[in-house]
Amino acid sequence: MTATDASLTRPTVTAAILVIGDEILSGRTKDKNIGYIAEYLTNIGIELREVRVVPDLVDEIISSLNALRARYTYVFTTGGIGPTHDDITADSVAAAFGVAIDHDPRAIEMLSERFPADQLNEARLRMARIPAGAELIANSVSKAPGFHIGNVFVMAGVPAIMQAMLDVVGPTLKTGTRILSETVRAGLREGDIGTALGEIAKSHPLVAIGSYPFWSETGPDTNVVVRSRNPEKLAEAVLAVKAMIEAEQTRLRG
Amino acid sequence: MTATDASLTRPTVTAAILVIGDEILSGRTKDKNIGYIAEYLTNIGIELREVRVVPDLVDEIISSLNALRARYTYVFTTGGIGPTHDDITADSVAAAFGVAIDHDPRAIEMLSERFPADQLNEARLRMARIPAGAELIANSVSKAPGFHIGNVFVMAGVPAIMQAMLDVVGPTLKTGTRILSETVRAGLREGDIGTALGEIAKSHPLVAIGSYPFWSETGPDTNVVVRSRNPEKLAEAVLAVKAMIEAEQTRLRG
Repeated sequence: MTATDASLTRPTVTAAILVIGDEILSGRTKDKNIGYIAEYLTNIGIELREVRVVPDLVDEIISSLNALRARYTYVFTTGGIGPTHDDITADSVAAAFGVAIDHDPRAIEMLSERFPADQLNEARLRMARIPAGAELIANSVSKAPGFHIGNVFVMAGVPAIMQAMLDVVGPTLKTGTRILSETVRAGLREGDIGTALGEIAKSHPLVAIGSYPFWSETGPDTNVVVRSRNPEKLAEAVLAVKAMIEAEQTRLRG
Repeated sequence: MTATDASLTRPTVTAAILVIGDEILSGRTKDKNIGYIAEYLTNIGIELREVRVVPDLVDEIISSLNALRARYTYVFTTGGIGPTHDDITADSVAAAFGVAIDHDPRAIEMLSERFPADQLNEARLRMARIPAGAELIANSVSKAPGFHIGNVFVMAGVPAIMQAMLDVVGPTLKTGTRILSETVRAGLREGDIGTALGEIAKSHPLVAIGSYPFWSETGPDTNVVVRSRNPEKLAEAVLAVKAMIEAEQTRLRG
């Protein structure tokens, strides 16, 4: 068995993101975390399968979290772990797992690196409330930690802090075979190649072919994205797509 | 009963967004529709309560759509209504509603405005497949229509087209009382005001108070967002927040 064969037999690792925050649902804040985490996971061979955005309501967080953590290898949450009354993620996660929650001495120590004792008030101590059995995720930006419990990773909503936490979490995750991807720019409208592309997709079952129209400086154009865990199958499908596009270009312009 | 009283008694209208697309989950494409629709709905008095992003898989689309349409006044979907094999939204919506799907003469007519007969090939005709009983949503950008069936509005994924469709759909929606919102910049860190803010939130049950930290040119700062359907209750809560912030500023700096 070659290295490639071995890597192809690694099991698929899946993930979901749970974005927690009224401010995203009201449109006041535009989410920047979904796209960032999606790209990060793809790059390390984890398949993001679902995203949900829910409001700051305990019951909504619990039911979504329980649905997602039962279904995917990992769940990443963002938002709701700050010092104010609307930060209810930690309590909701504890309730979802049916464990107690209390001020965690390790988290208090982390907060103490930033806040002198007279500033470590009731509100800031809220950020040290961690579900029993959870491991902390260090926060190099503003000290208040995230945590992981079971297969759930609880991270901040502020993008810079979330990204710092993901850098801590990433290397600890098990990863599957990275999905390889190649993009072919068609120089044609999507509808020009749709039928032939569908036939190629049907005859290449181990690759996923996506088609994304866009407007270029010369008019409507299409990116064909070919994805697979298998480099040989990917190359075969890309060749087929390129040959088809060339034939269509000739037919339409020649 | 004054006009204000009448507007306060309008029922709450809720919504969910279902984003359909492998390209969002892979991180290749960064979603721009969630934030846009969220802001649009908030502005017309519709409460966005949940967002889900799912892959291009019929079963995933059906189960998410059925969960969301049973729960909210409206569901808005984006993506998957183009001319290629990976555009499976219309078929999935038909299956979710248990209705037939076929080429719709009205949709073919719309496509004919853009494509001469010899270009209206099998792929492009895919965009005329509409579930039985659905009404079309005009597409002023590229003609291929969206549609609505029951409480579900099916729109394009390309932001410019989605936005044009939302402009068609928006005026047809029933709307609730618009949630009023006022933002107070604290000039303090979130943890400085967290405890007092929580007390204000508790004593103002008809308003929702959110707290959002950010970094300004002068250091860490916090926006307190006060939201309510009731303008008097909103004003009372804003006054309480401002008084609290002034007191905290004096205490910390004075």
